[in-house]
Amino acid sequence: MANRPIITLLTDFGWGDGYIGAMKGVILGINPDCRIVDLAHKIAPHDVIGAALVLGQTYPYYPAGTIHVAVVDPGVGGTRRPLVLEGGGYIFVGPDNGCFTLILKREQAVRTYELTEERFRLPRVSQTFHGRDIFAPAAAHLSLGVSAEAMGPAVDIAELTRLTIPEPLLNGAILLGEVIRVDSFGNLVTNISQEILGEFAGDNMIELEIKGERVTGLKQSYDEGGEGEIIALWGSAGFLEIAIKEKNLHRERGWGKGEQVRIRRKT
Amino acid sequence: MANRPIITLLTDFGWGDGYIGAMKGVILGINPDCRIVDLAHKIAPHDVIGAALVLGQTYPYYPAGTIHVAVVDPGVGGTRRPLVLEGGGYIFVGPDNGCFTLILKREQAVRTYELTEERFRLPRVSQTFHGRDIFAPAAAHLSLGVSAEAMGPAVDIAELTRLTIPEPLLNGAILLGEVIRVDSFGNLVTNISQEILGEFAGDNMIELEIKGERVTGLKQSYDEGGEGEIIALWGSAGFLEIAIKEKNLHRERGWGKGEQVRIRRKT
Amino acid sequence: MANRPIITLLTDFGWGDGYIGAMKGVILGINPDCRIVDLAHKIAPHDVIGAALVLGQTYPYYPAGTIHVAVVDPGVGGTRRPLVLEGGGYIFVGPDNGCFTLILKREQAVRTYELTEERFRLPRVSQTFHGRDIFAPAAAHLSLGVSAEAMGPAVDIAELTRLTIPEPLLNGAILLGEVIRVDSFGNLVTNISQEILGEFAGDNMIELEIKGERVTGLKQSYDEGGEGEIIALWGSAGFLEIAIKEKNLHRERGWGKGEQVRIRRKT
Repeated sequence: MANRPIITLLTDFGWGDGYIGAMKGVILGINPDCRIVDLAHKIAPHDVIGAALVLGQTYPYYPAGTIHVAVVDPGVGGTRRPLVLEGGGYIFVGPDNGCFTLILKREQAVRTYELTEERFRLPRVSQTFHGRDIFAPAAAHLSLGVSAEAMGPAVDIAELTRLTIPEPLLNGAILLGEVIRVDSFGNLVTNISQEILGEFAGDNMIELEIKGERVTGLKQSYDEGGEGEIIALWGSAGFLEIAIKEKNLHRERGWGKGEQVRIRRKT
Repeated sequence: MANRPIITLLTDFGWGDGYIGAMKGVILGINPDCRIVDLAHKIAPHDVIGAALVLGQTYPYYPAGTIHVAVVDPGVGGTRRPLVLEGGGYIFVGPDNGCFTLILKREQAVRTYELTEERFRLPRVSQTFHGRDIFAPAAAHLSLGVSAEAMGPAVDIAELTRLTIPEPLLNGAILLGEVIRVDSFGNLVTNISQEILGEFAGDNMIELEIKGERVTGLKQSYDEGGEGEIIALWGSAGFLEIAIKEKNLHRERGWGKGEQVRIRRKT
Repeated sequence: MANRPIITLLTDFGWGDGYIGAMKGVILGINPDCRIVDLAHKIAPHDVIGAALVLGQTYPYYPAGTIHVAVVDPGVGGTRRPLVLEGGGYIFVGPDNGCFTLILKREQAVRTYELTEERFRLPRVSQTFHGRDIFAPAAAHLSLGVSAEAMGPAVDIAELTRLTIPEPLLNGAILLGEVIRVDSFGNLVTNISQEILGEFAGDNMIELEIKGERVTGLKQSYDEGGEGEIIALWGSAGFLEIAIKEKNLHRERGWGKGEQVRIRRKT
C-alpha cells in the first residue's frame, strides 16, 4: 500500500447537505494523512443499480490498494449487512445491497467480511447514517493498514446480494436489448456489449429500432451525427449507446431506462 | 497543527461557475501544501440558516486544527464584517451573518477577530466576491501558521450575528415543533431533539401530526416504513425527521420548511 | 515544478456518472502522488464558451506549474485536435474547440502541441471519452515532468480554434453590450469591462437599459439593492453584472444569454 492511501467516495448525497462533509471529517479524524477522492455524489437517490454501474465503470482505473467506499444505501439501519470486500487488488466498503454486483461478476477470489467490530465504528452508531458511523471509519482504519479480516466475520460470497442487470436476448434474427442507464448528457446506455453484438452480427451492418424509430449502422463518434439525428455508437464503457449530437435525447423524446432496443443484421 | 493543514469549503456556489475554482487557486497560491476538502457547495443560494445547520452538523468530525471556511454571503460588500473565529480546537472563517450560530451556541471560549489586515487579503478586493479576495487568503495564511489575532481587531462575541433557529414549544399536552430543513432526499428535519422529546414523553409512545396527517410511534430506520407510509424517526444529527421510505416526501406532498409538527403522548 | 504537482479538472460531466471518477483514477494510476483539484464540473453540457469563460476567470489564481485540464468536448472523436498548451507559467490540456480562447487572448508566447504520442495515452482509446483516454493520461505524464513537446508535433497557434466572444459596440451616444453568461445565482454577466465603460463614460453617471427596464447608476455591492430592485454592479471578474438582491434575476424575468444591454451617459 502507498504511504498515502486513497479513499474514493461514491454516494447519492449530492452537495447540499452535511453528509459528504461528515464522512470526510470522520475519515480525516482517524487518518489525517489519507487522500479522499470524490468519485460521484449525484447517483439518483436510492439507485443502487446506478451505483453498481458507476463503480464498475471506474474502480479498475485506480491504483492497486485504493479503497472504494460506496454509500447508496436505502436499507440503512435495516437487515442488510455492512461489508468490506477484497478483490482485484482493491478494497471495497459499503452495504450488501447489490452495489458490488459488477465487482463480484468480474473479480476472482473476492473475500468478504461483515463490519461488526465496534472499535472500527464510531462510538455511537445511528440507524440512519452508516456512511458516517460505520463505512467511513472502516475505510479510514483500512487505510491505516488494519486488515479486512480484522473488521468482522467472513461472509460467504455466495450469500451476497447481486442485482439482476438484464441480459440481451437472441430471438430468431433479432437481438433484443434494453436501456439500462441514462447518463447526465441524456445518452441512453444499453446492455449490448461489443462482444455480444460482434457474435450476433460479425462485421455486418446492423439496423436498430427503438420506440418505432430506425437507426442504421453505427457512428464512430457523437460528432458524426447530423443535426437532430438519432445515432447509435459505442459508449466509453463498451456498451451500445443511443444519442443525439449535442442534445439530450432522454429529455427530447422522454425515452429512459427499460426502453426496448431491437437489432437486426442488415446484409 | 498538522504539517499539512486542512481547509474545508462550504458554499452556495454550485459547480457551474468559477467561484469554487478561484477560491482554491488563491489558497494553493498562498499555501501550495495545504489540503482543501469540499464540504458542501449546493447550500440553497443565500440560505445562511442552511449553511449554519450543515456546518454545525459536520465541523466536529474533523481533526483539531482544521480550518472551516463558510461562504454563503448574500451581504457581501455591505456592512457585515468578515471574521475569523477560534473555538473548540477549530478555526472558522466567513462573514458575520449568522453562519456561525451553532458554533457560538456550542463552543466555549470562542475568540473572534475581524479580517481587516490588508496583507492577508488579495491586493485588490472586489465588493462582490470576498470568498476569493478575503476569506480564501485568510484561511491560507492561517494554514501557514499566522495567528487569528494577527488578522485584525478582536470582536466581542456578544456582538456577533446569531440566527434564530425556532425552538419547540410546550403547549399543554402538546409539543409544538416545526420543520427547519429539507435534505436532498426530501426528508423533513424538525427542531425536536432527542433530549426535548425524552423530557416530554419519556419512554411513552408518541403520536405526531403534520398537515392533518397522523404518524404513530417512531421507526428505527427508513427501512421499517411500509410502501408510501409517512414515518417519523431520528435523523443522523439527532433531530426528529419525517420521511417516506425511498421516496422524496418534500416533493410528494409539497411540505417544507416552517411546517408545524404537533406531538402528543400516547399512553 | 513543485514536488506534488496540481492538476485541475473543468468539465460538463456533473457528479452523477463515472466520468469524473474514471479521469481521476487514470491520473492517480499514472502519478499516485499528484493532487487533483475539482475546479468546475457543471458547465452546461457542450457549452464550450462557458468553459472558456470559467477557465479564463480562474486559472491565473493558481500557482505556477499548475496543469489545467478542460474537458467540455462535444466534438470528441471527430476532427478537432487534442492539445497541450504552455503559457503564462501554466500547462493547459484539452480539445482544440475554443475552450482556450481567453488563454490565447491574454498570454504571450503560448506554445502548443498535439497529443499524438501513443505512450502518453491509454492503451485503448475510445472515440467517445478522450477525457479519460487522452487528456487525463497526458496531464498525469506532464505532472511527472514529461515535457509538453514530447507529447506530439508543434501546432501553429494561428491555427487554433478561437470562439467569438461578442465585443461591445459604440453606436453614437450609446454603448451596446450584451449578456454573455448567466451564473448559478441567476446574475447576468455582460461583456462590458471596467476599461470599456471607463473610456465611454469616465466618471459620469450611466443609465442602462435591458428589455425596456431602466437602471440608473452602479451599486457597489448586491447588498445595496432594494427589495426586488434590478441593479447593475461590477462582478468579480471585472465585467458589468445585472442582478436582483438575493433573487435569481434569470429565473424571475427569463432574461439570459444574448440579451442586449444599452448604456447612456447621464450627466
